[in-house]
Parts: sequence; C-alpha cells; structure tokens
Amino acid sequence: MPKLVLVRHGQSEWNEKNLFTGWVDVRLSAVGEKEAARAGELLKEKNVNPDILFTSKLSRAIQTANIALSSADRLWIPTVRSWRLNERHYGALQGKDKAATLAEYGEEQFNTWRRSFDVPPPPIEDKSEFSQKDDERYKDVDPSAIPATESLSIVIERLLPYWQDTISKELLEGKTVMIAAHGNSLRALVKHLEGISDADIAKLNIPTGIPLVFELDDNLKPTKPSYYLDPEAAAAGAAAVASQGQKK
Amino acid sequence: MPKLVLVRHGQSEWNEKNLFTGWVDVRLSAVGEKEAARAGELLKEKNVNPDILFTSKLSRAIQTANIALSSADRLWIPTVRSWRLNERHYGALQGKDKAATLAEYGEEQFNTWRRSFDVPPPPIEDKSEFSQKDDERYKDVDPSAIPATESLSIVIERLLPYWQDTISKELLEGKTVMIAAHGNSLRALVKHLEGISDADIAKLNIPTGIPLVFELDDNLKPTKPSYYLDPEAAAAGAAAVASQGQKK
Repeated sequence: MPKLVLVRHGQSEWNEKNLFTGWVDVRLSAVGEKEAARAGELLKEKNVNPDILFTSKLSRAIQTANIALSSADRLWIPTVRSWRLNERHYGALQGKDKAATLAEYGEEQFNTWRRSFDVPPPPIEDKSEFSQKDDERYKDVDPSAIPATESLSIVIERLLPYWQDTISKELLEGKTVMIAAHGNSLRALVKHLEGISDADIAKLNIPTGIPLVFELDDNLKPTKPSYYLDPEAAAAGAAAVASQGQKK
Repeated sequence: MPKLVLVRHGQSEWNEKNLFTGWVDVRLSAVGEKEAARAGELLKEKNVNPDILFTSKLSRAIQTANIALSSADRLWIPTVRSWRLNERHYGALQGKDKAATLAEYGEEQFNTWRRSFDVPPPPIEDKSEFSQKDDERYKDVDPSAIPATESLSIVIERLLPYWQDTISKELLEGKTVMIAAHGNSLRALVKHLEGISDADIAKLNIPTGIPLVFELDDNLKPTKPSYYLDPEAAAAGAAAVASQGQKK
C-alpha cells in the first residue's frame, strides 16, 4: 500500500537567529543537522523505507534529506527536486527579525502575516538582496510563476498540481514516498490529505525532524490517522513551533 | 558549450583497510569526506557550475556528490542515479584483502585481475555476504543484468548505453554535467571520450576527489585536452593510485 513520509527540516541558521526565511537559501544549524540524523534513525528503527525522495529546491530541506537518508542507509533512492515544495515565500518580510517585526507592526498584523490563510505579506522588491528573481535554481521555470510573496492559500495552489501529477504517480505504484520540505509546504499537503478547513489549518503545527507517516489507500485517502515516528518528541516539538515568534 | 565534470570518490572505509570493494556499499572515511569537500571548493573557485548530477547507486559516490555540491553551494541541481555508473564488480575478490590476495595468487594473477582489459575475476557466489544478488537498490533492474563479476570491458559495455542515451542528452542541451562515480566506471568513460586503446587504458590512473573537466563540441568530442581543477594534486594523486595494492 502507498505510504507517504513527511519530514520538516530542522533548525536553520536563520531559525536560530529568529529571522523570516521563506525562499532565502540558508543552511541547517548544527542542531538542525542532528535533527536530520535523528529523522533517519527513526526511519531505520521503525522500518519505514522510502523508495523515492522529493525535496524542495532549498538547501536546508536537501541537507535534511541527505543526512536522514545517510542515517537510514538509503542514500541510493531516486531523488527529485521541485520549487513547488519550497517554503512559503515571505515577501518583504524575508530577512527581517521576527521579534522586531512583531514590535514594529503589532501582534494583529504580525499574526495575520504568519497565520492567515490568504493574506500574503507585501511583495519583496526585485532589487532586494533577499529576492529570488534572478536565482539560477529557478531558471527552468516560467519566470512569471516565481512568486514575490505568498499566502498559505497560494502555496496550496502551486503545490497541488505537483502533488496530483508527479508525487501521486509514485504513490499510485504502491511506493513509499518521502518528502523533505518546509513548515508551510507540508501544512499545505496535510490540509489537502486530511481535509482540514481554511480556518483550522492555522492551528496545525508540524514539528521539525520527526517523520510523519500517512498510510494511504488506492485513492490516496488515509486509511488511518497519520502518525509521527516519535510521538512524544513530536508533541513537544509542535508546542515549540506554536510559540515561535514570541521570543524576545 | 557542453562541459563534463568527473569526480572520483575519495577514500572509503575499505580503501583505508586495503580491501577489494567493487559493489559492496561501504562509506567514505573521514579522509574521503575531506576530499569531497575539497572537490566542491575547487568547483566553486574555478567557477565550474554543474547543472545536473549523475551518480552511481553506491553510497560512497553519493556521499562525495552531496558533500561536494554542499561546498559548491549547488545542492539544488537535479540528481539522477544509475547502477550503470557503479564501480567494476570485483566478483569473488569483493571483501578480500588486497595484500593477502597478492600473496596468495602471485603478482601475475593479481595484476591480471586488477588491470587486464577483459579478464574478470571469478564470479561471486550468490550466497556470499558480499554478493549483491538480492540488494534492494537494484530491484528495478532486469535481474539477469546484475553482474556477479566484471572486467573493464564489461563495465564499458554496460556503461556506454547509459552515456549515449541519458548523460549525452543533457550535454547535447549545452549543460555542464557532473558525474560522481568510481575509478573503473570513470576510466571506462575517459577511454571512450579520449579514444584510448584497450592496451593503454591500464596505465590511466584517475586521482580521487579532484574534478576532471572535459570541454566538448556539439558532437561530444573534446575540443581540448581534459584538465584537472588542481593539476598538482592530481599528479600526486594519480601516482598514489598507481601504487595501490603494493601496501604490505
């Protein structure tokens, strides 16, 4: 039966500094590398064996997958990357300090940008050092498809076609598919798989570095509730994510 | 213009122990990891920017590519793996100590197995712990194609179709293609590209961890002699490879 394994990348250098990241290509911190290795150990311990890997085009997700598959002794599986699995583009907030943004704009505006379903932050300017307008990694993509800001709603729109055509194809062959990606691209996918409402998705916090497994039927519907390979660590991790941005 | 960049993996745990490896899936040693990082730094320093990566199905080549592309800040390029880029299958010698094999069989037989063009070692038995008969990573391949031993001649036969159809396709689009692979699969490719004779190929020693660049024309013929990104280190490295197996 098809099995889907989601892994959210662990701490990055900018998570550590409490900056909005989005499409800025920062690396994992040392903590994030350890989280990735633990994710791979969990796959091995629980005998969850991905047949194919999908990643975003961002280094922190790719590093997470490389480290996890090394721990799981499955470096050899086929690997596919797509910008459609990228983190939400954070627009003009990319590169800004979260606590400073909260102080500058107030809690209501801050929470709207972070958690509203369909209100994107202001678009980033092309000339910003944190813009991806001329980023070589997207040179094969229609330039008008590359966003300058995104809401979660926009992330769902750009991710679902890739899920439907490309990732689903592998699952429909009965494979175990691993996706290494980001908080918001994975929330978009879980929303689709579990039929979570636009209002309720704000409350879903996916912890980092703990594989989340969906067992699916032939119509790619979950046959049972999804589960984390380390439920206790996942509960603690989700609480930590929920409190992000409150840091002084 | 098309550009081909070959990277031979660095020291593995079994190179370090002086064992015949072939298709046995051993990891890089700490020295091998450093070599891979240096390969990536050279790519960056010399502004050689791969657009796509091909690797074998063996962890030591994949680790080399992952580490090198991390150093080169190009983790995001598309990645394709094939058993056709694997090291030569060393048959019944896999897992044996090189110095002990030399002592047991004598220099002539030892050198025939290591360096003859078309004499493979005896095939490995299916029941050997070092056989790849039931290795999951080859489950998508016609089982009769998976070798139990190989000569360099057999490596060329199984590698060339992949070069002609798949790797060449990317080069013919004008891309810079990186291949992370092994001493013998890379020798097979260089023999083809440079028209080296069956007799002379025995003398070609490709050093580990130093990118070797071919600039090609539209017919995929080299437009100038191939070159290493660190020629001095390459000369020293080739000499070290040539003396392998002589270690007591």
